[in-house]
Amino acid sequence: MSDQMYKKVALIGLGLIASSICHAAKRGGLVGEITGYARSQETRDIGREIGLCTVCDTGAEAVADADLVILCVPIGAMGPVMAEIAPHLKAGSTVTDVGSVKRAVFDAVLPHLPTGVHFVGCHPMAGTEHSGPRSGFAELFDSRWTLVVPGADADAQTVAQVEAFWQGLGAMTTQMDIDHHDLICAVVSHAPHLIAYTMVGVADDLGRVTDTEVVNYSAAGFRDFTRIAASDPTMWRDVFLTNKDATLEILGRFTEELFALQRAIRTGDGDHLHDYFTRTRAIRRGIIEAGQDTAAPNFGRGPSKS
Amino acid sequence: MSDQMYKKVALIGLGLIASSICHAAKRGGLVGEITGYARSQETRDIGREIGLCTVCDTGAEAVADADLVILCVPIGAMGPVMAEIAPHLKAGSTVTDVGSVKRAVFDAVLPHLPTGVHFVGCHPMAGTEHSGPRSGFAELFDSRWTLVVPGADADAQTVAQVEAFWQGLGAMTTQMDIDHHDLICAVVSHAPHLIAYTMVGVADDLGRVTDTEVVNYSAAGFRDFTRIAASDPTMWRDVFLTNKDATLEILGRFTEELFALQRAIRTGDGDHLHDYFTRTRAIRRGIIEAGQDTAAPNFGRGPSKS
Repeated sequence: MSDQMYKKVALIGLGLIASSICHAAKRGGLVGEITGYARSQETRDIGREIGLCTVCDTGAEAVADADLVILCVPIGAMGPVMAEIAPHLKAGSTVTDVGSVKRAVFDAVLPHLPTGVHFVGCHPMAGTEHSGPRSGFAELFDSRWTLVVPGADADAQTVAQVEAFWQGLGAMTTQMDIDHHDLICAVVSHAPHLIAYTMVGVADDLGRVTDTEVVNYSAAGFRDFTRIAASDPTMWRDVFLTNKDATLEILGRFTEELFALQRAIRTGDGDHLHDYFTRTRAIRRGIIEAGQDTAAPNFGRGPSKS
Repeated sequence: MSDQMYKKVALIGLGLIASSICHAAKRGGLVGEITGYARSQETRDIGREIGLCTVCDTGAEAVADADLVILCVPIGAMGPVMAEIAPHLKAGSTVTDVGSVKRAVFDAVLPHLPTGVHFVGCHPMAGTEHSGPRSGFAELFDSRWTLVVPGADADAQTVAQVEAFWQGLGAMTTQMDIDHHDLICAVVSHAPHLIAYTMVGVADDLGRVTDTEVVNYSAAGFRDFTRIAASDPTMWRDVFLTNKDATLEILGRFTEELFALQRAIRTGDGDHLHDYFTRTRAIRRGIIEAGQDTAAPNFGRGPSKS
C-alpha cells in the first residue's frame, strides 16, 4: 500500500468522487502529487481552502506531466473536457473516468485520445446523496465494488495498474464488458434512482396531502426514497440521457410488474401479493450477507441520530 | 411519566409493534401489568422465553380485566380476533389497534364492539424491516408520529387517555380523520412499499443480470429499496387489500409521472429531468430538518457497520 503507484495524478472535476479519491489516495500513500481542476471558480476556491490538492486554474496545467488523469465530471462534460486537455496529456500516460455509464464515455473520450495515451473506463459503485469538494471522505470506496471496463484495445498492464490503484483506494474490483456494465447499472442504480425521483415528485405534487404531512410521516417508508432522490441533478440528468436504452428497458419491465401487482390489489389476489413479498425478502438477506448493507434495523439510524 | 396510565394492558399479537410497546411501556413505567397473546404457539413460546410479558394461551385470558386492549395483528385478522375476545372485554375498557389502514379496521372491529367498551384507532408511523417478538425495542416510537383516529362516536376523555399513553411510549401524536389517514398512508407508506417490492422483484427476475451482480453492486442505489421490500409479507398483503382505492390512486399518479419522465429520457429533454431532480432534492432537506431522518451520508451506514 505504501508503494507509490503513480507519481502524479490529476483530477478533472472536484466533486464527491474526486475529493474522496483524494482523501483515499492520501490515506494509502498511493501517489506522489495530486493536482485538480474544476470549471467553477467557487469549487476551485473551496478545494484550495480545504487543502484538497494542488488546485490549478486550467485543465491543461492540471494534467501536465500527470501519469494518471481521472475524469470526475458529469458524463455530458466528458467529451468537452477531453478535447480541452488532450493536447497536454503526457505520452504513455493513462486517462480514466468515474462515470456511471460506460458506452457514452467511450464514445465521448476515444475520438480525442492522442496516440500513445491509454484509456481505461472505471465506475466506483459507491456514493452518497451529497455533492461537492467538501463531501468527500477516505472511506467511500472501502468494501465497495469498482467496475473496471477496459474496452477493446486496452493494454493489459495499464488495466492492471488502474485496477491496483482502485484496490489501493479501498475498493474491490472486477473487469466488465461495456454494454453489460450499462445494463447492470440500469438495474441496480439508474432505474432505482428514476423511480425514487418519481415517487418523491408525486408526493410533493398532491394537492390533498400537504408537504408537512409528507415530511412528518415519512418514517413509514417514504423517507428511504428521498435519500437517492436528493442526488446531484446534473449528474443524473446526464446518466439518463446517455444510458437511455438500458434504463428504458428496465423501466418497461418495472411498469409491467407494477401493473401485475396493481391488478392483484384490484382483484384481491392476496396469494400473488404474499408470494411476491416473500421472494423479495430473500434478496435483502443476500445483500447483508455480501457485506453491502447493514443488518441493523432502519439502516441503523435511531431516533438519537436524527 | 411514572404515573401508571392503565392498570392492565393486553397485547393481542406479539410482533415488532407489540413487543416494542411492551419495552417502551416498561421503560416509562406506564402500566401495572402487561398480558399478551399470539395465535402461534412458537410466538408465545418466544414471548415467554424472553420474558416479554405475561403470555396467555387464549385471547380471552389475556383481555380479562384489561383496561386497554391493543390489537397488534395484521389487518385481515382484526375482525376474527375481535369476535373472539369481545365477550371477555371489561365494561368501560378501551380497545385500540396499530393497523396501517383505518377504514378497514373500523369496519372489522366496530360490529363486534360490546356496548360500554370504547374503540380508538391508532397508527404508530414507525417500524423496521424486522418482525416477531424478538425484534421490538423501547426506542421505536421515540420522536415518531402516532396518528390517533378517534372515529365518529369516540369519547373525548378516552381518546385523550390513549393519546397520552402513546406520548408516554415516546411518540408525538396528532388526531386525524379516518379517510385522510388512509390517503396520507397511501402516499408516505403504502405506494412506496409496493414500488420497492416491485423494483426488487424486477431485479431478481432479469435473466441477463445475475442475483450475485445485483447483490454485489447494490450500493449504487438499489439496496435502499431492499430494506422496505423485506417487510412482513402478511402484514403488507393485508394493507394493500384493505387500502385498495387510495393505494391504486397514488400508484396511478406515480405511473403517470413515471411515463412523463420516461418520455423526457426518450426525447432527450434534459431540462425537464434537471428541473424535476432539483425539486425533489428540497424535500429531503425538509425531512432532515423535521428530525425524521439523519443527515449523515448514506443514512449514516459506513463500511465499518456493514
